[in-house]
Amino acid sequence: MVSLFTIRFGFPLRPNFAVSGPTFRSSQLRFPRGFSRQSALLSGTHSDTNAPDQPKRATQPTLHVTWPHNGWEDSVVLHVVPSHRKPVTAGDHVAWRLTKLCRWAMDLVTGMKPKQRDNPAASPLTETQWLVRFIFLESIAGVPGMVAGTVRHLHSIRRFKHDQGWIKTLLEESYNERMHLLTFLEMYKPGWMMKLMVFAAQGIFYNTMFISYLVSPGICHRFVGYLEEEAVHTYTRCLLELDSGSLPQWASPGFEIPSIAIKYWNMREGRRTMRDLLLYIRADEASHRGVNHTLGNLDQASDPNPFLKKDGQAGHMHAAAASPQGLERRGLSNS
Amino acid sequence: MVSLFTIRFGFPLRPNFAVSGPTFRSSQLRFPRGFSRQSALLSGTHSDTNAPDQPKRATQPTLHVTWPHNGWEDSVVLHVVPSHRKPVTAGDHVAWRLTKLCRWAMDLVTGMKPKQRDNPAASPLTETQWLVRFIFLESIAGVPGMVAGTVRHLHSIRRFKHDQGWIKTLLEESYNERMHLLTFLEMYKPGWMMKLMVFAAQGIFYNTMFISYLVSPGICHRFVGYLEEEAVHTYTRCLLELDSGSLPQWASPGFEIPSIAIKYWNMREGRRTMRDLLLYIRADEASHRGVNHTLGNLDQASDPNPFLKKDGQAGHMHAAAASPQGLERRGLSNS
Ligand SMILES: [Fe+2]
Ligand SMILES: [Fe+2]
Ligand SMILES: [Fe+2]
Ligand SMILES: [Fe+2]
Repeated sequence: MVSLFTIRFGFPLRPNFAVSGPTFRSSQLRFPRGFSRQSALLSGTHSDTNAPDQPKRATQPTLHVTWPHNGWEDSVVLHVVPSHRKPVTAGDHVAWRLTKLCRWAMDLVTGMKPKQRDNPAASPLTETQWLVRFIFLESIAGVPGMVAGTVRHLHSIRRFKHDQGWIKTLLEESYNERMHLLTFLEMYKPGWMMKLMVFAAQGIFYNTMFISYLVSPGICHRFVGYLEEEAVHTYTRCLLELDSGSLPQWASPGFEIPSIAIKYWNMREGRRTMRDLLLYIRADEASHRGVNHTLGNLDQASDPNPFLKKDGQAGHMHAAAASPQGLERRGLSNS
Repeated sequence: MVSLFTIRFGFPLRPNFAVSGPTFRSSQLRFPRGFSRQSALLSGTHSDTNAPDQPKRATQPTLHVTWPHNGWEDSVVLHVVPSHRKPVTAGDHVAWRLTKLCRWAMDLVTGMKPKQRDNPAASPLTETQWLVRFIFLESIAGVPGMVAGTVRHLHSIRRFKHDQGWIKTLLEESYNERMHLLTFLEMYKPGWMMKLMVFAAQGIFYNTMFISYLVSPGICHRFVGYLEEEAVHTYTRCLLELDSGSLPQWASPGFEIPSIAIKYWNMREGRRTMRDLLLYIRADEASHRGVNHTLGNLDQASDPNPFLKKDGQAGHMHAAAASPQGLERRGLSNS
């Protein structure tokens, strides 16, 4: 199988920063026309100093941090590991097969070459390939939490029942994924082809997830747990390739990550490299993995959300990130 | 026109409280079989000491306060007034006509008699009629904010754009409506007939709102603004009838409001009467009215949410409650 697209990339990787530094350009890859935007400004809220035909904006884009991130401790971030929960029930198997199908489609669509897929060590991806992949991944990743939160809200107000505290965690997950996406969008502006594919993918995925979640929410959470396993794999591979020297722009001391990321994750001075950012995002994915595998283990109607503290506040993400297989229901009801 | 149903009501109005007090029973009204539940427990999370065939629960139902209420000051609560924003544009007229249609359907479905509708002063509603009306109203009211929040989230991750801070306010609105519903459900348990009608209404309303919001979000916000005008009217009428003595149970000094309401609105000692509760809920509706009329005035794609403080925190609801017509876009862009 050959990769779907040859990729042309002519857009500077560095977004708009107040502090100056070296600017990098990547030209290893080519997207077909429309896959990468060259001139038009993507969004009214992004400024783009690299496009000379754009009017400069007086102000930096404002980030409204809706649900502030709790931040990550090194003890968690550095100990995230890829993992796999073995499918046991019939529902697990359905979820796992669907995940493999999604993985295959993602590889196809983002133009990953077979040798890159089969032999990562010998054929690393480029920065641009990673960004295209992340943006696809994250634009889809924002869907399930919103669907699950919506359906549980509608259940509650239709069936006249309390929600057991799940909705907050689910909506925050979708917000967290959107922050991942907005961060990567500061480094790469997709063109019309990519937009079109994301549009189609969202339309299909949102509606399928919605109906599936009405029918079998437990299998949906298992499926999301598996997708998040894949996300942890993906970011782990990227980190390995960063450390092995195949992503020189991101490894350069002059590379600055978007200010939106520094603000959202509260990244402290001296810990604002691309490596730190990828570690943080991977920890987020690990917590989604733990949360969704756990929710998949629970009684959807009656079990309370175990990741909510008594005061309704978070702090639960550390426990979730440290539970790659999710928490078993039996263990929870004993406690 | 005759009212759809004769109403039978045999369920105690007082929910489960730790502190004891006189128990009231209402028997002025009759619902057809299935409209009001007599024996089965509605929800696993509610305890119900009044149903002798139910196993008693050791614990009170836990309320996870997802988005804490900011509380209301008397200066706002006591000065909420019914109002109407005159429709100007074609979109306004569409929204206003739809609102009148909804109002008509609500009156029909909740069994409001024509004389009660046309001559409120001479034909007040009973406590039970109010509760049925509130529960219908609030179970529908939780839909639009969730739809708008979802669609704006999907827009953001599909079009690769920032959201301008609207989503938080919209989702919090739907949560606030759900708290209204859960509060009234502590006072009245709907039967299968009412559940069936809410089920059908939600299915129709959710899907219609979703498609409408994709097509014309501005008209949707205007429509919700008008619905909230009606909600302010409804709670104002109820308060008038409470003050005029036609709701003796709620006016009784021994009547205790649900503990969930005290917790959610942070209602202070000595200010926990049914009248206080209705004033608080009416203030919430007034803030929804101001928010949605304002959002209806704005450019949906590019204008920031004016009710969000710089730090992303709330405090905006007072401004919204004090703007029954909504804020005009011109005024906002000048500031
Ligand atoms: Fe993500
Ligand atoms: Fe994730
Ligand atoms: Fe309400
Ligand atoms: Fe409302």
